[in-house]
Amino acid sequence: MNVLVINCGSSSLKYQLINMENEEVMAIGLTERIGIEGSRVVHKTSGEKTIIEEPMKDHRDALRIVLNAIVDPKIGAVKDMKEISAVGHRVVHGGEKFAESVIITDEVKKAIQDCAELAPLHNPANLMGIDACEEILPGVPQVAVFDTAFHQTMPKASYLYGLPYELYEKHGIRKYGFHGTSHKYVAQKAAALMGKEMADLKIITCHLGNGASITAVDGGKSIDTSMGLTPLEGSIMGTRCGDLDPAIVTFIMEKENLDVAAVNNLVNKKSGILGMSCVSSDFRDVEEAADAGNEKAQVALDAFAQRVKKYIGAYMAEMGGADIIVFTAGLGENSISMRAKICEGLEGMGIKMDAEKNNVRGKETVVSTDDSAIKVAVIPTNEELMIAKDTAALVK
Amino acid sequence: MNVLVINCGSSSLKYQLINMENEEVMAIGLTERIGIEGSRVVHKTSGEKTIIEEPMKDHRDALRIVLNAIVDPKIGAVKDMKEISAVGHRVVHGGEKFAESVIITDEVKKAIQDCAELAPLHNPANLMGIDACEEILPGVPQVAVFDTAFHQTMPKASYLYGLPYELYEKHGIRKYGFHGTSHKYVAQKAAALMGKEMADLKIITCHLGNGASITAVDGGKSIDTSMGLTPLEGSIMGTRCGDLDPAIVTFIMEKENLDVAAVNNLVNKKSGILGMSCVSSDFRDVEEAADAGNEKAQVALDAFAQRVKKYIGAYMAEMGGADIIVFTAGLGENSISMRAKICEGLEGMGIKMDAEKNNVRGKETVVSTDDSAIKVAVIPTNEELMIAKDTAALVK
Repeated sequence: MNVLVINCGSSSLKYQLINMENEEVMAIGLTERIGIEGSRVVHKTSGEKTIIEEPMKDHRDALRIVLNAIVDPKIGAVKDMKEISAVGHRVVHGGEKFAESVIITDEVKKAIQDCAELAPLHNPANLMGIDACEEILPGVPQVAVFDTAFHQTMPKASYLYGLPYELYEKHGIRKYGFHGTSHKYVAQKAAALMGKEMADLKIITCHLGNGASITAVDGGKSIDTSMGLTPLEGSIMGTRCGDLDPAIVTFIMEKENLDVAAVNNLVNKKSGILGMSCVSSDFRDVEEAADAGNEKAQVALDAFAQRVKKYIGAYMAEMGGADIIVFTAGLGENSISMRAKICEGLEGMGIKMDAEKNNVRGKETVVSTDDSAIKVAVIPTNEELMIAKDTAALVK
Repeated sequence: MNVLVINCGSSSLKYQLINMENEEVMAIGLTERIGIEGSRVVHKTSGEKTIIEEPMKDHRDALRIVLNAIVDPKIGAVKDMKEISAVGHRVVHGGEKFAESVIITDEVKKAIQDCAELAPLHNPANLMGIDACEEILPGVPQVAVFDTAFHQTMPKASYLYGLPYELYEKHGIRKYGFHGTSHKYVAQKAAALMGKEMADLKIITCHLGNGASITAVDGGKSIDTSMGLTPLEGSIMGTRCGDLDPAIVTFIMEKENLDVAAVNNLVNKKSGILGMSCVSSDFRDVEEAADAGNEKAQVALDAFAQRVKKYIGAYMAEMGGADIIVFTAGLGENSISMRAKICEGLEGMGIKMDAEKNNVRGKETVVSTDDSAIKVAVIPTNEELMIAKDTAALVK
């Protein structure tokens, strides 16, 4: 069975075609600048990379070009669209309606639409991708896999904010959490790595990419996570501020004379590691600057590591300990120095890093010492495979 | 030496006259509704309580009435104002200018004024108290003791938010922390209780009153604290929301059509335990409701305990462990059940509560078991005594 995995942004469409028999990626690509001048597809099959420059006025145009590439005799991966058995869509916000992946029906589409006010940039784009697939691949079953679903197991004490209860009832203001597909995937891998059942483990998963979130997985269930109503809360990120005194938002609005849209742009796009370091949102650039003596860059890295360390401690307290801490995503998988910095000084809490084992990038492996009471591991995430697996399981 | 301790709010003035030879409180009282109809003083000396109802148009009027009561032959504590050797003022915000208490000069007053934009409700009221004392007690030395001073030792990685650096430089947007006088006082007491120097200890102080803050004191220095630019950040509180996804502030503004002042009022006055429980901001009322089966009240208490627990874990990670955890202030000193709830499940992290020892209110004592790796103690706070001590030390 071949599953097409689709991840639609407002002007982008990422895809992978995965053969579920051997989990092989048959085609992978990215469509950029949909509806904007200069739209193009970067399409890859085993080793071959093709760039297709063609106007695309909407996600339907984009998907048509992608599917043509997938079945193209020269650059394609299959002979006929009939070889695509199902489509799995990443959907950002499932609100409280979806605690797991579902086969897409009109009712499901309506519910995704209802959640759009919680993710106004993402859910409408996800729906455009679903509509395009319905048109171009009629009769092929489609599945929605939600970023928020894994966190629906959080208890009320975790997901309610210290706000008037009616704001939760009226507007759904609560913690939802994101990156759920990734946290679930690496938590399952961590259990396998330890040779135990998820049900018997306390796992802390650190998804550290340009967006960053940390999750406490107790007995296989997410019981708390650092992102909130939106993906702005939690750790400092590439360009997002993460945790703030809530009074700061209106303080900035008044001091800088900004309206709601402008302050949201500031805290989402101009803050985080970029804003603190005044260098870049890319950790590699910031590490380079810090090594060259840039003090702001150094403080940005120190603050980032400290915030992740605090979440690790907080989640240990919440679960009454931890069996394994997992690092994943771009930074988590590849920054040897950041993993070391985050875990530095935690020996007294049972976490001992092995500098030699930690000298690794993008490979599943344990990076703590043999006698570390709490294991630390690098586990590369694979959200697309997770989406494809959920899709295949529901379609069967 | 007798020191008068003054704590001015916008329409209130609290005072204590303390004999520094024996630390005895000679007079204590509260002036309410200054500048509003129905203003009055509740004045107490050893055992005697007097209520003085008299119009007061400003803090100077209030202070005059208070001083008259203090030297009154019948209800007073001393014979003459000359027996007041110094005045110590609680000042809320010292910004980055004050890392310790200082004798008040014109320059200091100017600096307190400069910090007023960070504490617009508090610093102007504190200055009114200082001006009134200068007029009515000319020549008596005055000292300012800042809520923020103890936290000025925080490293940059703790006090900087994930925001553009220029917002720190231009507007002083950073974490300052509050309740510093209380955190310092109980940390000193904790060191004495352990028979060690502060320099050799890792202490977590939980000041849990109607306002709540938690501080990590490493080697005698505050290295992190839960309140931020303002006293809104951190734990859930009586009526304050504490930590939020920063995106929620503008989300509420848009959904509820509120302006900056209205949303600030909502998160400061209508949120926290009051907003979550829909019962009261007083923990005793909420505990009673929860015991009677009120689900929202129960969740509010659960969430409060969980947030404090998370800070304890976070600060353990930041310091690489802890030697003692201190509970202080109204709730911390008096709620047996909340202390138990916060520490529940932390046995694996070295914290074992002793149910029998914990059955105590408002008394300095250890409440953990003898074999608890990390001690837990109740230590009643005394900010007024701390202010008086700082004042006496500077004046001598």
